[in-house]
Parts: sequence; structure tokens; C-alpha cells
Amino acid sequence: MAAEATYRRPEIRKDAIHNRWIIFSPARARRPSDFKSNSDLNPNSNNRSECPFCVGHEHECAPEIFRVPPDSTSDWQIRVMQNLYPALNRELNFPNCPSESGQCSGDVAVIGFGFHDVVIESPVHTVHLADLSPAQVGDVFLAYKTRIDQLRTLDSIKYVQVFKNHGSSAGASMSHSHSQIMALPVVPSAVSSRIESMKEFFEQTGKCSLCQVRTDHLLIDESTHFLSIVPFAATFPFEIWAIPRYHSSHFHELDSDKAVDLGGLLKLMFVKMSSQLNNPPFNFMIHTAPLQINPSQLPSTHWFLQIVPKLSGVGGFEMGTGCYINPVFPEDAAKVLREVSVPNNG
Amino acid sequence: MAAEATYRRPEIRKDAIHNRWIIFSPARARRPSDFKSNSDLNPNSNNRSECPFCVGHEHECAPEIFRVPPDSTSDWQIRVMQNLYPALNRELNFPNCPSESGQCSGDVAVIGFGFHDVVIESPVHTVHLADLSPAQVGDVFLAYKTRIDQLRTLDSIKYVQVFKNHGSSAGASMSHSHSQIMALPVVPSAVSSRIESMKEFFEQTGKCSLCQVRTDHLLIDESTHFLSIVPFAATFPFEIWAIPRYHSSHFHELDSDKAVDLGGLLKLMFVKMSSQLNNPPFNFMIHTAPLQINPSQLPSTHWFLQIVPKLSGVGGFEMGTGCYINPVFPEDAAKVLREVSVPNNG
Repeated sequence: MAAEATYRRPEIRKDAIHNRWIIFSPARARRPSDFKSNSDLNPNSNNRSECPFCVGHEHECAPEIFRVPPDSTSDWQIRVMQNLYPALNRELNFPNCPSESGQCSGDVAVIGFGFHDVVIESPVHTVHLADLSPAQVGDVFLAYKTRIDQLRTLDSIKYVQVFKNHGSSAGASMSHSHSQIMALPVVPSAVSSRIESMKEFFEQTGKCSLCQVRTDHLLIDESTHFLSIVPFAATFPFEIWAIPRYHSSHFHELDSDKAVDLGGLLKLMFVKMSSQLNNPPFNFMIHTAPLQINPSQLPSTHWFLQIVPKLSGVGGFEMGTGCYINPVFPEDAAKVLREVSVPNNG
Repeated sequence: MAAEATYRRPEIRKDAIHNRWIIFSPARARRPSDFKSNSDLNPNSNNRSECPFCVGHEHECAPEIFRVPPDSTSDWQIRVMQNLYPALNRELNFPNCPSESGQCSGDVAVIGFGFHDVVIESPVHTVHLADLSPAQVGDVFLAYKTRIDQLRTLDSIKYVQVFKNHGSSAGASMSHSHSQIMALPVVPSAVSSRIESMKEFFEQTGKCSLCQVRTDHLLIDESTHFLSIVPFAATFPFEIWAIPRYHSSHFHELDSDKAVDLGGLLKLMFVKMSSQLNNPPFNFMIHTAPLQINPSQLPSTHWFLQIVPKLSGVGGFEMGTGCYINPVFPEDAAKVLREVSVPNNG
């Protein structure tokens, strides 16, 4: 496999979901199995006694929104709270439509209204998602859903981005396991573009692009309700998508059964990634539909969760073109992740 | 200024050129003047005796395409050559149109045809662009132009991306000063999107968006033919755009006079950036028009050069939404760069 990859010719593939070209160029890289992270996960790791996310330090945090279980005291499992350093301000009064600013008619600015929340995934400093049970990982997803259900009652919120930065080189400033939820008063252009690309596919084929996603040679594993694959035109080496096997536009349609099922599959992906790639820093992002999406777009829109191990940086070519160079063919990455044996997934 | 920035409310601005939202959130950041790089530029810096880009080591490189001056021997100033580890292969036979691959009708792949060249900007290992004279920096730009003029004779090449990675955290694998040229058989979607956004502005206003660019409070400096500004919706802190003051769609329209003029302005920007931001790693990208652009789009398309000091990483929010969080308001960044005094620009 390694030798095969080494002599494969470069290929340019289209990521039809994100509408971008990706260059696969194995000649530039080591063998797929040689990809190991050498990042120190948390060079400035805050220790337990100083960590405001640890149980017993709740008073050092910004206001709590809710906890799981709801009536817990010091025995909480998950806390959802405001970010102490929010990128957007929840107290601003948002106008109904963006207004123009400055002298040039192209300059559009709106006040920075929005919500920026933190989800503490465990009360214990050293416990990460991969250490939780499938049901506990599922509870984290259900906490996202509960918070989105609150946020989507607000007309001013157009999109909710759930994401996780794990490890300092992936953007985490705290080592205690957590994820973040940002609720935005605008639909980001990458989201509009994704919805538009999926709609085009639907118009051309009559089918949802993710209900039809290619799995031959790309499948890593599957559970009752989800598939995990390396996508055909993965932007990054060893990128993983977890895709519902049922058609669903919005992540917040997730129910308890499916959350546990997803929790089990995700836990397995984290363990495989950690084992094969040397416990790399990573990001995950939930790609869902805008809250006020046109109902005619629901048949073509399908949410998924993207996991990206942080194995390389971005240079001027990627910044200039939005076109990424991936040194590992998706089929090779999927094989490496599919075949790695991991301890019992319990 | 610093105190003012600290208490400013967050703002969401639209980058009308790249069609994306940027969140300006100074509350999360230090004062603008506190932004200093702490990156080691080249932790694995190759030393002079081992560097294949140094004069005397020409035989260790991939084939040369041309040198400047053309008839020079060991007294060359610039060499343009093939990349020894190209991301694309110049010897493949490219089909006229992308063909579908795989079982899913959405999966488009083409063979990885294209050119990936390197421009060595000086024969001397320790000399960087900021150390060259304006005319010498201009010669580097003219070398790009010469190479683009060769590449654009090929019908199969649709876009040429010129870029520079300076410092290992900005993606440079060699410390000897160099830039890169990639010629692609497809137009990257970020480029199509930029051309489309500029066309929309033109249709709405009858004017080219960059001929009309806002400069009040955003100007850093100007030369006879170019402006340097921090753009109204800068994606990154202290990002700089150098924009021709004359309307021009393609970078390769640059002539010798304008190249020297641009060289002087860019040298000044590098010196200011280095002085104010502690010699940061950086990328620059030339954003030009596709080679076979529809002539009707020429009035709305205007090339520019973008410089991005590498001061922060990208996390899950940016990867999920394409929407960036910039902790420094462009007006503050422009002031910091405008007011820093630098040695005589000669």
C-alpha cells in the first residue's frame, strides 16, 4: 500500500459538497502510515488546581446556561455556559438587516451580536471524549441539541456552529475537554455555498449528495444510524466525516437513540485516530443547515460531522486559491483507519 | 488608541472581495501594539553549506527554467526552476474537460497536471526580500511576470497562483528566500468567487471595487502606482493589501517602472511589519484574474497582492464557517503600521 501510494500520479478531485478542488499529491509525502502527529497537545497546559473548568471551580467561570443532569450539584457531568471571552456579544441589540458603513458603498458592517458558549464535556480535568462511554459522548451531543433548541427560538440567529478545538495547535486555549457553540446573526458564506452545492447536485440527480455518498474503499466503519468515511476529496490528510445514514438536514433533529449510536462511532474514530496518528490535536465541526432554511432546500441538505486531525499547516497556495494540497489519498487514509485494531469499544 | 480598541464593541464586517464575513472582536485580544510574533522562523533552518538554493549548489536542484540576468553564470541574481517535489506533474497529458470518476455521479477527478516552480530571490542564503533594493524586489516581480507569460501560452492552464511562504510556521520548508508559482488546469473556486463578487459590485455601482477601495483610516502608505492598506474587513490581524492605483485585471500586465515602484512599497511594508511585529513568519499571495477570463469581466477585476503575517492559527470555528475572527480592527492595525518609523527606504 505504501509503495503503491508513493508511485501514484497526482490527481485533482472536486469536493462537491464544499465546491472546491483538492490536489492529491502523494509524491510530496511520506507513506500514509508514516503520518504521526508530533505536536505537543498542550504546551501551556493549565493544571488541575488552576483550571476553571474543573468541578469545584464553577464560580470562576462566566454564567452557566444549564448543566447535565439538570438537578445535579457537584455531581454534574456536563456544563453549558457562556464563554468568558466571547467573540460576539449577546447583549447587543441587533438590527433586522445589515446596514452600510463607511464611505464606500461596498463596506457592509453590522454590530457583533451573537452567542458564544462553552460546553464542558466532563467534570474531570484529564478525561477526554475518547475516554467517555458511547452514552456519555451521546449526552454531549444532546447538550448541543438542547442549547441549539434554545437559540433557534430567536429570529435574529441565522446559523449555529458547534465545534471543538482539541490541543493548542488546533486552537484550544484550555486543556480541559470542552467544545464551543457560536450562534451567528448571519449565514456564513461557506455555509451558503455548501447548501447551494448540495442543491445543485440534487437538481442534477434527483438525489441527496450525502444519502448517495461514495463508500467503496472510503468506509472506515458504520453503526446503526451513521457511516464514518474519509471523503472522496478530503481537504486534509486523514479527515473523517460521520454522516447520518438517514436523511436529516439539521443536527438538532438528533434523538437520544441516535445520539448514543453516534457517540459510539465517534469514540471509535477518536481511538483509531489517536492510535494511528499518535494522539494528534484535532478539530471537529458540525455542518448543519441554516435555521431559517427555505423548505424547498430540505431534501438536498444533509448534516454531517467533520473531524480534522491537525497534521499540517496552511501556506500561501491554500490561502490564495482555497484549493488544498492533500498528500494522502482518501482510499489510503481510510484503509489505515479501517484496519487499525483498537481495544474493545465500550 | 489601545484603550479605545479594548472597549470597542465587536463588529461583523463583510469582505466584499472574498464574499465572507469577518468578526472583529477586540475584547478577546491584547492591545494592537502587543501583537508580536513569537515564532521561531526556521527551527530546522538549513545552513548555507547544505542549502541547494545557494549559489554554487545549482546542480542539486531540479531543472532551471531561466535565470536573471539571462546570460549570467555564477553571478545570477534570481533563478526560476522546477520544484524538486512538485504538487502537480508537468508531464501528464491533460484532457480537455474533467471526467467523472467512481460510482457516484458527483465525484469529479482529473489527473494532476500542472506546473509547480520555485523562484530563488537571491543567491545569498541570508538575504531576504526586505534586504533587497526596490529595483531588486521589482526584478523578482518581473521574474514572476516572465514565467506567467510563458505559462499563459498553454491553453490547458487556467490560473497561475504566485505565493511566498516565509518562515516554517507559514509553510516554508527552506529558509533561503524563495517564492513559488503554481499553474493550474482549473480555476480555483476561491478565485471564481472573488471574480463573481467583484462583478456584482460593478453591476451595482458601475465602478471597480478596488479602484474605489476605502482608504480613510486604512491607508498605510502609497507610492506612485500603488496603495498599501489594511482592508476594511481584513481576515487576519495586520493583513496588508498592495493595490495598483491604476485599473488592471492581470498581474502580468506589470511593466518595469511599476515593478520597481511596487518593489519599493513592498520593501517598506516588510520592514514595517518586521519592526512592529517582531519579524513574523508571513505569506504573500498575488490575486489576479484567470487567464481566459471573459472580456466582459475585465472592467470589474483588479489584481492585488495580499500579505498575511502569521500571528495566529485557525480553529474549528473558521474551518466550519469560513468566517474568521480577527482581534484587531483594521483601523488600529493600519495606524500601528502607518506610524511606525523605519530606517530610510533605499
